[in-house]
Amino acid sequence: MRRFFPILDWGRSYGREALVNDLVAAVIVTIMLIPQSLAYALLAGLPPETGLYASIAPLLIYAIFGTSRSLAVGPVAVASLMTAAAVGGLAQQGSPEYLGAAMALAFLSGLLLLAMGFLRLGFLAAFLSHPVISGFITAAALIIAAGQLPPLLGLSARGETLPELALALLGQIDRVHLPTLAMGLLVLAFLFWSRSRLGGLLARIGVPAGPARLITRAAPVLAVAATTAAAFGLDLGGAGVALVGEVPRGLPRPALPPLDPGLWMQILVPALMISVVGYVESISVAQTLAARRRQRIDPDQELIALGASNLGASVSGGFPVTGGFARSVVNHEAGAETPAAGAYTAVGMALATLVLTPFLYYLPKATLAATIIVAVLSLIDPGALRRTWRYSRTDFTAMALTLGVTLVAGVEIGIILGVLASLVLHLWRTSRPHVAVVGQVQGTEHFRNVLRHEVVTDPAVLSLRVDESLYFPNARFLEDCVQDQVARNPALRHVVLMCPAVNDIDASALESLEAMNARLRAGGITLHLSEVKGPVMDRLRRSHFLDDLSGEVFLTQFDAMCRLSPGLTRATAAAPRCETDRQALAGAAR
Amino acid sequence: MRRFFPILDWGRSYGREALVNDLVAAVIVTIMLIPQSLAYALLAGLPPETGLYASIAPLLIYAIFGTSRSLAVGPVAVASLMTAAAVGGLAQQGSPEYLGAAMALAFLSGLLLLAMGFLRLGFLAAFLSHPVISGFITAAALIIAAGQLPPLLGLSARGETLPELALALLGQIDRVHLPTLAMGLLVLAFLFWSRSRLGGLLARIGVPAGPARLITRAAPVLAVAATTAAAFGLDLGGAGVALVGEVPRGLPRPALPPLDPGLWMQILVPALMISVVGYVESISVAQTLAARRRQRIDPDQELIALGASNLGASVSGGFPVTGGFARSVVNHEAGAETPAAGAYTAVGMALATLVLTPFLYYLPKATLAATIIVAVLSLIDPGALRRTWRYSRTDFTAMALTLGVTLVAGVEIGIILGVLASLVLHLWRTSRPHVAVVGQVQGTEHFRNVLRHEVVTDPAVLSLRVDESLYFPNARFLEDCVQDQVARNPALRHVVLMCPAVNDIDASALESLEAMNARLRAGGITLHLSEVKGPVMDRLRRSHFLDDLSGEVFLTQFDAMCRLSPGLTRATAAAPRCETDRQALAGAAR
Repeated sequence: MRRFFPILDWGRSYGREALVNDLVAAVIVTIMLIPQSLAYALLAGLPPETGLYASIAPLLIYAIFGTSRSLAVGPVAVASLMTAAAVGGLAQQGSPEYLGAAMALAFLSGLLLLAMGFLRLGFLAAFLSHPVISGFITAAALIIAAGQLPPLLGLSARGETLPELALALLGQIDRVHLPTLAMGLLVLAFLFWSRSRLGGLLARIGVPAGPARLITRAAPVLAVAATTAAAFGLDLGGAGVALVGEVPRGLPRPALPPLDPGLWMQILVPALMISVVGYVESISVAQTLAARRRQRIDPDQELIALGASNLGASVSGGFPVTGGFARSVVNHEAGAETPAAGAYTAVGMALATLVLTPFLYYLPKATLAATIIVAVLSLIDPGALRRTWRYSRTDFTAMALTLGVTLVAGVEIGIILGVLASLVLHLWRTSRPHVAVVGQVQGTEHFRNVLRHEVVTDPAVLSLRVDESLYFPNARFLEDCVQDQVARNPALRHVVLMCPAVNDIDASALESLEAMNARLRAGGITLHLSEVKGPVMDRLRRSHFLDDLSGEVFLTQFDAMCRLSPGLTRATAAAPRCETDRQALAGAAR
Repeated sequence: MRRFFPILDWGRSYGREALVNDLVAAVIVTIMLIPQSLAYALLAGLPPETGLYASIAPLLIYAIFGTSRSLAVGPVAVASLMTAAAVGGLAQQGSPEYLGAAMALAFLSGLLLLAMGFLRLGFLAAFLSHPVISGFITAAALIIAAGQLPPLLGLSARGETLPELALALLGQIDRVHLPTLAMGLLVLAFLFWSRSRLGGLLARIGVPAGPARLITRAAPVLAVAATTAAAFGLDLGGAGVALVGEVPRGLPRPALPPLDPGLWMQILVPALMISVVGYVESISVAQTLAARRRQRIDPDQELIALGASNLGASVSGGFPVTGGFARSVVNHEAGAETPAAGAYTAVGMALATLVLTPFLYYLPKATLAATIIVAVLSLIDPGALRRTWRYSRTDFTAMALTLGVTLVAGVEIGIILGVLASLVLHLWRTSRPHVAVVGQVQGTEHFRNVLRHEVVTDPAVLSLRVDESLYFPNARFLEDCVQDQVARNPALRHVVLMCPAVNDIDASALESLEAMNARLRAGGITLHLSEVKGPVMDRLRRSHFLDDLSGEVFLTQFDAMCRLSPGLTRATAAAPRCETDRQALAGAAR
C-alpha cells in the first residue's frame, strides 16, 4: 500500500515546520510557474489557459503518488514542442480537434507510463543514452528558441524544424512589426541582465545568496507585470502588438478526451516518445535533488506518479506534463520539504485562474516568447559535443546524429534515429571485442597483455583474454581470431581462453565455442578455459559443452599455467604457491 | 587484386589431379542439382526452367570471386520461400511481372551484398543470432513442407503461413486426386527409405562408405527418372496427374530486370532479408567445410562473391541464390578441390537445359514436392528448442518468438521480430548486470563473491565487482546499486569498484560515475577503482573523471586492500608481497 501511495509515508509525520517551509516554496514556485505555464501552452499551439489547467490537477496527483520531495511537475518546454509536433499534423491549430488531440496525447502518455510502472519497465528509459538525450535536448531547445523569433518580430511564421522556420521567416521578413520587436528586445535584455548581473547587485546591497537566487528566478514575473501594465496604459494592442487576449476565468471543467481509435493509433508513437523523454527528464531531476538530501527515489513508482499526473492533466483540459528542471530546483532551494509543496502550488495556480485571468488579456505574446528563449537557452550545452568527441567517437556519432536529424527533420525522427543509432553503434562496438594475448608478469601471479607489459609466455600455450561478453554479435569474431592465432603458431598445443571479463555466454556464442573446440581438437590442440565467472559457469553446466571440452576449466590463469607449463611458472613465481592456492581454493571453486 | 579475385590464387597452381577431382564432384553435384533446381523454382512460384538458369551463371561467377573451395551456390529452399513471399503480393503468379519482380529481387540482393562487401559490413550478419536463425529455419522448413502437401494431393491450394495453408487445404479436401497421392506417397516412401536404409544395404553388398553416401544422395534423381518414365508410359497426365509440362529448351537469354523505382522500393526490405539470411546460411556452410581442411574463408569477400552471383542470376533469368548446405557437403565429399568444380557444374547444368528439357515435360509435380519435403525436413531441429530452453531463457524466448511468428504471420515479420527481440532481450539482460560484493580469499591475492566463497572483508571498505561493461542501459542501475549499499553500511569509508569485467565505459556511464563520485564525496566516502583494463583507462584519461575522482585507481584489488585496509591484508596474506607486487608492476602499470 505504502509503495503505491508514498503520501502515507511522509504524511504521517507531517508537522508545522514542514507546513511553513512547503507554503513558502509553493508561493515562490507559483509566481514562477504562471508565466511559464502560459508560455508553454502557446509553444504547444494551445490556448494559454490550458497551461494553467495543466499546472493544477497534475501537481495535486503527483503529491499523492510521487516519491520525490522536490519535483515540480507541469508543462515543460521539450514536451510542449513534442506535443505541437505530434498534434500539428492532425488538426488545425485553434480548433477543438487540436485541443482534443492534445488531451488524448496526455491521456495515452499517462496510460503508457502507468503500464510501464506496473510492469516495472522503467529500464526501457535506459535505452535513451545520455548522448542521445543531450543531443536531442540541445536540438529541441534550438528549435524552440528559433520558433520564438516570429512572435518576437510580430510575425506569425511557424515550423517544426529549423529549415521550415527559416523559410517561413524569410517569407515574412518585410512585415516585421517594429514596436513589438523593440518591446521584445527590451524584455530579452532585461531577462539576460537579471540572469547574469541581478544576483551580484543583490549581493552587494546585502541580500543573502538564497533569497537573491529566488528573486533572480522571479524576474520573468516582473517582465510580465511591467509589459502587461505598459500594454494596458499605452494601448499597445491598438498599436498592433499581439496580446494574449481573452482567457476564460475559472477552474477547468473535467472532460474526457475524444475516444477515437483512429486518432489514438496516430498518436501512439508520439505519446510513447513524450512519455519516455519526459520520464527521463523528470527522473534525472528527481534523483539529482534527492541525492543532495540523501533521499531515495523509486523509479517504478515515479512512472506511476507521472502516469497518473498525465491522466489528471488530460481530463482537466491540459496537455502532457512532466517534472521540470528549473522549477524543481527553485522548489528545492526555496525549502520544500514534502510533495505537499506541490499541492499548495496547485492551489496557487487555481487561485490564479480565478483572479488573474482578466489581467492576462493585456499580456504581450512577445514577452512570453522572450521568457521562453531565456529559459531554453540554458538547456543548450555546446561543450557536450566537444567533450563527447574527445571521450568516445561512437557516443559522439550518436549525439551529433540525434542533434542534426532533430534540427532538420523534427523531434520524432530525431529521437527515433538517435535511439537506433546508439543501439547499432553499441552492437558494432561489441562485435569486435578487444582480445589480448596475455603472459605472466615475472614474480607475480598476474597475466597481462603481451603488447602492453613485459611478460613471459610459452610458445606451446596460447593464452587469450577476451575483453567482452560472448554473445551473438561477436560469436563468429572469436572463432576467426583463434583460427588466425592457431595458423600463426605451429608449436601450439594448448589454447587457454581467459574469461574474467566474460560476463555472459549466450546460445550463439556457446555454439561457436563448441565449433571451436571440435576444430582445435581435430588439429591436436586442447582448449581450456580459466577464470570463468560463477554465473557463466552455472550456465555452462546446463549444456553439453563441459563434457565435450577437450581441456579443463581452471579457477585462475595461474593454475592453468602451473599445469600446462610448469617449467615456466616455476621459473617466474614461487612454485609452491601453485599448490597452496589450488588446495585453498579447491573447495570453493567447483 | 588477389583479394577480390581469389581465382588468381588457386588458379595458378591448378593441376591435373585437381582437374580430375573437380570434374568427378561436378558430375555428382549436377545430377543432384537438376531436380533440386526445378523444385525450388516451383517453390518460388516460378517456371521450372528459371531454376536451371539460376544454377548456371551464379556458379561460374562464384568460381571467380568465391573464397570457399567447396561451396555450391544456386537456388535454395529458404531463399525460394522468401522470394515467393516477397513477390507473391506484387504480381500474379505465372505473369511476366512476377518473373520480372523475382529477377529484380535477385538484382537488388546482389547490389546490397556487394555494397556490404565493399563497406566491410559483414558484421551486420551477426545481428542474426543463432537462436533466431534456428527458429526461423525450422519455421521456414515447416511452411515449405506444408506447402508441398497440395501438389502431393493433386490440389492447387497456396499460402504463405501455416494458417493460410491449412484453411486453403481444408477448402479443397474433397477434391484430392488419388492417383497423384498414390504416386507421391510411393516417391516419399522411397526417398525416406533411401535416406535411412539404402546406405546400410550398399555397405552390406560391399560398396565403400564414400560412394555409398553419394549414391544415397542421388536417390531423388532415380525417383525423378522413374516417375517421368511412368508418366510417359502410363499416360499419367491423361489420368489427371499434374506434370511439369513444356520447358523451353536452350540457354537463358541475358536480360535486365525491370527498372521500376516503385517496384524496387517495395522489394527493398525483402531483398535485404534474403541477402542477410542467405549470406548467413552460406558463410556457415563455407566455414564448416573450410575448417575440415584447415582452409580460410574471407567473410567480406564472400559478400562480394554472393553479390556478384546474384547479379548473374538476375540478368540470366534466375532468382535469388546462395550457398546450399546439402549440395555443398556433397561437393566436398565428392572430392571437389577448387571452385572450378562449381564452374564444371554450371557447364553440366547448361547441357541439361540443352538436352534434358524435352524429357521434363512428363515429370510429375508431385515427385518434385516429395523431394522438397524430404530435403527440408532435415532442416528442422526439434531438439534445439529444448536445448536452448535449458541453457538460456532469453535465447529461448527469441527462438520461440521467431519460430511462432514466422509460422503464423510469415517469413518477413518473423525474422524482423526475431532480430528486434534478440536485441531488446540482450539490452534487458545487460541493463541489470551481476554486481557482487567481494572479499579476500584467505592466504591468496584473490577476491571473490562473498555469497559464493569464504572470504574476509573490512566493514569500512566496500568492494563491488561489476560483471558487465558500463554503458547506457545499465548506467543508472549501478548508481542505484551503490546508493543501496551505502545506505546499508554506516561504517563505510571507501567504495572500490573492481573492474576486471568492465570492457567499456561509454559516455552515459561516465556521467553516472561522475555523479556517483560527487555524491559519495559529499557523504564523506571515497571512491576508488581497481583492475581497470588498459583500453578503458586510456579512454578515462581523455575525460576529467580521473582529476575529479576522490580516491585512486589501483592496478589490482589486492593493492587497493593493502592501502585501504592494511591490517586485513597483513592478516590474511604474506604482507611483503604487497610491496613486491606494487614495485614489480609500477613501471608497467600507469
